[in-house]
Amino acid sequence: MTMRVGLIGAGNIGGSHARDLAGRVAGSSVSVVFDVDRDRASALAAEVGGRAVGAYQDVIEAADVDAVLIASPDDCHAEQALACLAVGKPTLCEKPLAPNEADARRVLDAEVAIGRRLIMMGFMRRFDPGYVELKATFGPDGIGDPLIIRNSHRNEVAPYGLDSALSITNAAIHEIDINRWLTDDEYAWVEVLTGRNGPLTPEGQHDPLFLLLKTRLGTVVDVEMYVQSQLGYEVTCAVTGGTGAAEMADGAYVNASRALHRGHSLPQQWLGRFGEAYRLQLQAWITSLEQGTVPPGASTWDGYVGAVVATAAVASLRTGQRQAIELPPRPALYS
Amino acid sequence: MTMRVGLIGAGNIGGSHARDLAGRVAGSSVSVVFDVDRDRASALAAEVGGRAVGAYQDVIEAADVDAVLIASPDDCHAEQALACLAVGKPTLCEKPLAPNEADARRVLDAEVAIGRRLIMMGFMRRFDPGYVELKATFGPDGIGDPLIIRNSHRNEVAPYGLDSALSITNAAIHEIDINRWLTDDEYAWVEVLTGRNGPLTPEGQHDPLFLLLKTRLGTVVDVEMYVQSQLGYEVTCAVTGGTGAAEMADGAYVNASRALHRGHSLPQQWLGRFGEAYRLQLQAWITSLEQGTVPPGASTWDGYVGAVVATAAVASLRTGQRQAIELPPRPALYS
Amino acid sequence: MTMRVGLIGAGNIGGSHARDLAGRVAGSSVSVVFDVDRDRASALAAEVGGRAVGAYQDVIEAADVDAVLIASPDDCHAEQALACLAVGKPTLCEKPLAPNEADARRVLDAEVAIGRRLIMMGFMRRFDPGYVELKATFGPDGIGDPLIIRNSHRNEVAPYGLDSALSITNAAIHEIDINRWLTDDEYAWVEVLTGRNGPLTPEGQHDPLFLLLKTRLGTVVDVEMYVQSQLGYEVTCAVTGGTGAAEMADGAYVNASRALHRGHSLPQQWLGRFGEAYRLQLQAWITSLEQGTVPPGASTWDGYVGAVVATAAVASLRTGQRQAIELPPRPALYS
Amino acid sequence: MTMRVGLIGAGNIGGSHARDLAGRVAGSSVSVVFDVDRDRASALAAEVGGRAVGAYQDVIEAADVDAVLIASPDDCHAEQALACLAVGKPTLCEKPLAPNEADARRVLDAEVAIGRRLIMMGFMRRFDPGYVELKATFGPDGIGDPLIIRNSHRNEVAPYGLDSALSITNAAIHEIDINRWLTDDEYAWVEVLTGRNGPLTPEGQHDPLFLLLKTRLGTVVDVEMYVQSQLGYEVTCAVTGGTGAAEMADGAYVNASRALHRGHSLPQQWLGRFGEAYRLQLQAWITSLEQGTVPPGASTWDGYVGAVVATAAVASLRTGQRQAIELPPRPALYS
Repeated sequence: MTMRVGLIGAGNIGGSHARDLAGRVAGSSVSVVFDVDRDRASALAAEVGGRAVGAYQDVIEAADVDAVLIASPDDCHAEQALACLAVGKPTLCEKPLAPNEADARRVLDAEVAIGRRLIMMGFMRRFDPGYVELKATFGPDGIGDPLIIRNSHRNEVAPYGLDSALSITNAAIHEIDINRWLTDDEYAWVEVLTGRNGPLTPEGQHDPLFLLLKTRLGTVVDVEMYVQSQLGYEVTCAVTGGTGAAEMADGAYVNASRALHRGHSLPQQWLGRFGEAYRLQLQAWITSLEQGTVPPGASTWDGYVGAVVATAAVASLRTGQRQAIELPPRPALYS
Repeated sequence: MTMRVGLIGAGNIGGSHARDLAGRVAGSSVSVVFDVDRDRASALAAEVGGRAVGAYQDVIEAADVDAVLIASPDDCHAEQALACLAVGKPTLCEKPLAPNEADARRVLDAEVAIGRRLIMMGFMRRFDPGYVELKATFGPDGIGDPLIIRNSHRNEVAPYGLDSALSITNAAIHEIDINRWLTDDEYAWVEVLTGRNGPLTPEGQHDPLFLLLKTRLGTVVDVEMYVQSQLGYEVTCAVTGGTGAAEMADGAYVNASRALHRGHSLPQQWLGRFGEAYRLQLQAWITSLEQGTVPPGASTWDGYVGAVVATAAVASLRTGQRQAIELPPRPALYS
Repeated sequence: MTMRVGLIGAGNIGGSHARDLAGRVAGSSVSVVFDVDRDRASALAAEVGGRAVGAYQDVIEAADVDAVLIASPDDCHAEQALACLAVGKPTLCEKPLAPNEADARRVLDAEVAIGRRLIMMGFMRRFDPGYVELKATFGPDGIGDPLIIRNSHRNEVAPYGLDSALSITNAAIHEIDINRWLTDDEYAWVEVLTGRNGPLTPEGQHDPLFLLLKTRLGTVVDVEMYVQSQLGYEVTCAVTGGTGAAEMADGAYVNASRALHRGHSLPQQWLGRFGEAYRLQLQAWITSLEQGTVPPGASTWDGYVGAVVATAAVASLRTGQRQAIELPPRPALYS
Repeated sequence: MTMRVGLIGAGNIGGSHARDLAGRVAGSSVSVVFDVDRDRASALAAEVGGRAVGAYQDVIEAADVDAVLIASPDDCHAEQALACLAVGKPTLCEKPLAPNEADARRVLDAEVAIGRRLIMMGFMRRFDPGYVELKATFGPDGIGDPLIIRNSHRNEVAPYGLDSALSITNAAIHEIDINRWLTDDEYAWVEVLTGRNGPLTPEGQHDPLFLLLKTRLGTVVDVEMYVQSQLGYEVTCAVTGGTGAAEMADGAYVNASRALHRGHSLPQQWLGRFGEAYRLQLQAWITSLEQGTVPPGASTWDGYVGAVVATAAVASLRTGQRQAIELPPRPALYS
């Protein structure tokens, strides 16, 4: 049995997903592709063996689409996710669920009303071997409970403009999610500090940002978000546990000594670091669809909480004030 | 289109292959399974959605088998590969092609007579991200040409008995192959040194072995083969190039500080290090079958040369003498 | 010419200093030793070739003491430093200058009144090869200006009781100093966060502490201070620069693979990490005394600022509020 | 008490020693300096507070010289060491004891005839923290007995011409000594393999060389000696033990991510790697002189054995044959 996936959005990440589904994931195919750039959709469809359509609704409603993958721009996610829920098709939605809390809430409410978990959020880091190994060090046989977690998220150049709020809702959203997953905890508050800017930071913007968060159990989490770091794509995570400490390495396989220097290359783009996480996420999703089990990744609730926290972080960036995180009760559907 | 694979051998590596083909490789299924242990075959077949049969020939001749995967004991490989060639089915044959040169030669001659490359050898390290990244450092923009290569291959405990010859033909065969691939060169001679044994080495055996090889272009290659190292499964490769040096790391993603120690875990078994290489090899094989292209991994010629070199190494172990490597001309089929 | 050093305090660090001066530093000897424990003083004096005396004033006033080294308990430092200033003898004073701002200020004022820099503070990390190499990466040919600095300071067990305020004034004082030195900047504010405690933290105390500081130029600095980490003695420092990032390694020379683990040992005590920094600091001090140059390490001003910041940090710990750092103008003596 | 050292040879290494003795070693001074270049001797003497003399004998016989440090060209060592023995002064002699066996034997015989260990050989790696930590991993609580040891010794450019024999007697002599020290064993045979040369190797020379040695207990040792590696100065040592494996790291304290690369600098010259080993060696020597104990480093016997093995290695290079190592009985003086 092959799961036929319909793809909304044929950009960088959509293309990567499509090629994975067609050539690196067991049990899946890409049957239908939509993109606002029709040529881009057609080219990708031809490459992966599907057909292009002229509207995202055509993807969702197609008879030969068993499940939908949303890889469109951030502000389209909520509307398209609602459309998927309306027809009851399983959906993998790229992060964020929405760039603001209100839209995310509408999707959450809709799924709760249906009473079935149809949406899986594309927080692929939960499938990354680095984070998985890191979390496996927690506990009494390892480093104990996580007390302090420090994260860095660096892009070589800003891939999506230079708005500091966007670097929270689109990029640091990954750290907002993965630290919830690492700690199995919710945030109590968030504060965004700005300070000394990098040499490429435009007037009126802040880069890097320094996010400070505290969880309900008291774990301190900080996040350096630096979109114009120039150094390459680099993500770090260092955990202080009750009885030990652990850091995530970057998965490089080679060190070379050359020209008075020893070390290894850094990737330029996130796919160079997380390509395997994306593949593993897709495989886990497809396998769960085949087996009829609950989607194994982040849920709509996780997407909603991410939007709440990111919204609070943006408010902190605007006001300079620490922001409490207020969450509604977690619906039973997600327990 | 799904390639239906028939599996001969349902042991550790056969089971791993079957689960990859069924659940982690795009475009494949496992349709038929044979093992001398009928129950083991049935259990694996049930797990991956195929059926068990009572003879390996039943696998090869089955109408619903498009391609064969040979994962039987080493001394069965040649006979089964010949049977696959006889029916003209594409075959992935686990290493070694044969534990001796004569049997390997029969397979080589048979494939040359057919004039089509049907067999791919399971030297999965050629697909390992570590070796691939290592080879990518060679050349004028990197470390230059490889002048000296030093390899370690350590098992925690001897997984296949303690015969020193077997540790060459079954285990060090990986290094014999991968260094040919790294250097794009053939060996001129091989010598096996024995010396100080490890604490678990039985009387009359030698462990570790130290293989010394020189290629035709003059690259010096050495291999430590230590099957009872107790430390875990660990494979290293360090290359001295003309203008730099490079070493393969072990792909660990986490370092932890705990109890006065800092570092990371080592795997106990080869799948813990090379699981990804096996998956990538299978995917590349299946994709080439779909596309009708030449198998992308090691060829029957590579398998044959491996057998020649391993045979010479065993002779050196027995005699204490350096052994010249004599190869027939490479058939045009493999150029 | 040999500088004859008088030592006040023959405990762990005093003993280490004395042995360095007698056996590992060029141009120095230990002539006189005082300790409240007379036997301890006598034993150390015998070991290093000096004599023991019955009062710290006897050290300071001895004719055969060219310079004084203060390694007594924290709350004696200021009084003894003032006594050294009174007789005009060069002094190396262990950190902190005082556990509170007022006492530190008295020493500062006294030295300014004299108009000569006689005191060097024992912030030995400024001589540590790790921090020195780290700072050398800053600047346009390296990682750019420091934008964010994250520090961890872990003890295996609390070496001086479990009072959280003491872990600031006695231990985190090192990070307070070294980040000033790294950034060539002063702090604007400090905040101490408490949260999830380690398993050994006593009721009513906080461990680890998380210090957050911001410099006048906007560099964000955080410090994890964990005195009961159990893992060993470990100090880390990771800098995000404008165009790159750099982390301090721990100076281990060996990695070993054994028993399914790969890595290296951690020291139990700070001398295992900073022994070389102490030696280098003493050598630089003695050499400067011989040459009549300004002491090359931290100054009384640095000691005073450390006390101000630590006092503010303790206030933040008590009140839960962010504390502004107010400094008097830097006296011309220290410019 | 200050040991007054007379220095023969004011070149790179002589100058480094003199500055260490004058400014970084407790209990020593440099009183007299000789060099064939009189100006160089005078300049160095002025810098370190000694006087220059016109002949090496003047150093040895000077009343204000308590001990002699020989840092002259390799082929002067034996003659000058004999002159030191003749006057009974303790001597630290740079490696090698002699570039050939016969000269080394004369020094050995002379010291044995005197019956006192006056000479210490400058094999400073025995004091290097890297090798010391590495050897500390041996044994039942660590990696077990050393079974295989692999060494690399790389210079950026050939610092002493390009003769392949000289790269053995002057450079690889370090590995010849340090592996004896690591194993507490003597070599049974040596073979030098040549092969693919680096891009800068002149016609008729061989670079890198690959030395293969086996000890009497059966430990296999190999040495890559590459004097024109271009990559910088780099020394590696990897040991396979009976129950584990250990490698020496390079002592770098910082890793930086910058411009798509992560890693650290390599030194250009050996002092960048072994400066601390030189200092520690000198301190240990001076301390032993003060205390009247046996010199703590390599002995004349070690120097002699080094010359025997290097001579055999050169013979192997010339003949292409494996050379047995024949040693006279170790004199009781060195047991």
